[in-house]
Amino acid sequence: MKKIKIDPSPNAYRLLNPGAVALISVGDGKTDNLFSVTWNMPLKREPGMVAILSGKGHFSYPFIEKTGEFGINIPGIEIAGAVLGCGRTTGSKVPDKFARFGLTRQSPEKIKAPLVEEAVGNLECQVSQIVDLGTSSLIIANILAATIAEEHYKDGGWCYDNGLSLLHHLGGDSFAASDHEIEVQIPEE
Amino acid sequence: MKKIKIDPSPNAYRLLNPGAVALISVGDGKTDNLFSVTWNMPLKREPGMVAILSGKGHFSYPFIEKTGEFGINIPGIEIAGAVLGCGRTTGSKVPDKFARFGLTRQSPEKIKAPLVEEAVGNLECQVSQIVDLGTSSLIIANILAATIAEEHYKDGGWCYDNGLSLLHHLGGDSFAASDHEIEVQIPEE
Repeated sequence: MKKIKIDPSPNAYRLLNPGAVALISVGDGKTDNLFSVTWNMPLKREPGMVAILSGKGHFSYPFIEKTGEFGINIPGIEIAGAVLGCGRTTGSKVPDKFARFGLTRQSPEKIKAPLVEEAVGNLECQVSQIVDLGTSSLIIANILAATIAEEHYKDGGWCYDNGLSLLHHLGGDSFAASDHEIEVQIPEE
Repeated sequence: MKKIKIDPSPNAYRLLNPGAVALISVGDGKTDNLFSVTWNMPLKREPGMVAILSGKGHFSYPFIEKTGEFGINIPGIEIAGAVLGCGRTTGSKVPDKFARFGLTRQSPEKIKAPLVEEAVGNLECQVSQIVDLGTSSLIIANILAATIAEEHYKDGGWCYDNGLSLLHHLGGDSFAASDHEIEVQIPEE
C-alpha cells in the first residue's frame, strides 16, 4: 500500500475523526506489541493531540510508561480479523502479534514503536499527560508524525471513493463498517 | 420513535462505542441549547463513564459549568442536517435550536437539560472531572440514565438490522455513515 506523509497538524487528527477502532503499537526497539483500542479520540487540531484509554494491567502499558510513545494504526476492513485477534490475545502469551496475525512492521519516523503497514493510516504519538481513572488511564499525547494510504486521502482527511471501509466497534466481537460518504445539508428555515 | 431505558452500567457506554458524532444538549430548566460534538468516547463500563471535548468559548460551556450536567444524543442519518446545523450555529444567535432544526425535546429523567427525541440514543451525564487543555476542556462525566430506540437495540448495544445508520464526522461538512454490521473472525494460526 502506498503511503504518504501528512503534517502532524492541523489535519492529522482527522485520522481519528470517524471514531474507528485503532490498533495501538508499542515497542522499545527490542520487543514490541499490538493491542486494539475502541476508545480513542482527537483532542486538538494544532498542535495535533489525541487521547486513548488503556487498562493499567495491560501487557503493553509498561511500554507506554517507559518509552512515553506509541503508534496509532487505523485498520481497514481487510485486517478486521487481526484487529479482533490483537484485542483477544495478550502479549504475554503471543510475543509477536505481527507474525501471529500476518501484519508487517512499518518503520516509524519519530518513535521506537513500529507501525502497521497494512493499516490505512498511522499516527506516531508522544505522551504529554496521563489522567488516572483507577484501573485504567486516559493517555493524552501529541502527534509527531502521520502517514495515510494515498488512495484513501483527500483534502486533509479520509476519502471513501476507493473502497475505504473503517471498523466501528459495537461490543464483544461485533463491528459495524463505515464505507461511504453522505451528502448533508443544513435544513432551510 | 419508541425508546426503552437501559441501565447506566455496564452497557450504556456502548451508545458511544461506534464513535459516531453526538448532539450535546444543555439546559438549566429555563433555557437550553444543542451543539454537535465529534470528539467523544467512553471511558469506563462500570460505573458508566464518558468524555466529551468542548471549547471553553462555546455558548453552551457555561451551562455545563453551572449545572454540571449535559445530555448526549446519538443521531441517526435521518437528522444529519440538524447535526450539521447545530454545529454551524451558535446559541447566541439561534436561541432555540430545537425549533430551528425541527427537533423535539425528550424529557430527561435525572438532569435538567432536555434530550433529543429524534436521536436514536440518549445518555444523561453528570460531570465528574474537567481536564484543562487550554482553550478547550475535556469533560469527564458519569452516565446517570440512558434510553435507546427499541428497534435499534440488541444484546446491550446497537442493532443494525432495522435500518440504523450512524454518522461519522470526517471534517468540515463531510460525514461517512455506518449502516451494517460485519462478520469478523480471528485468523487461524
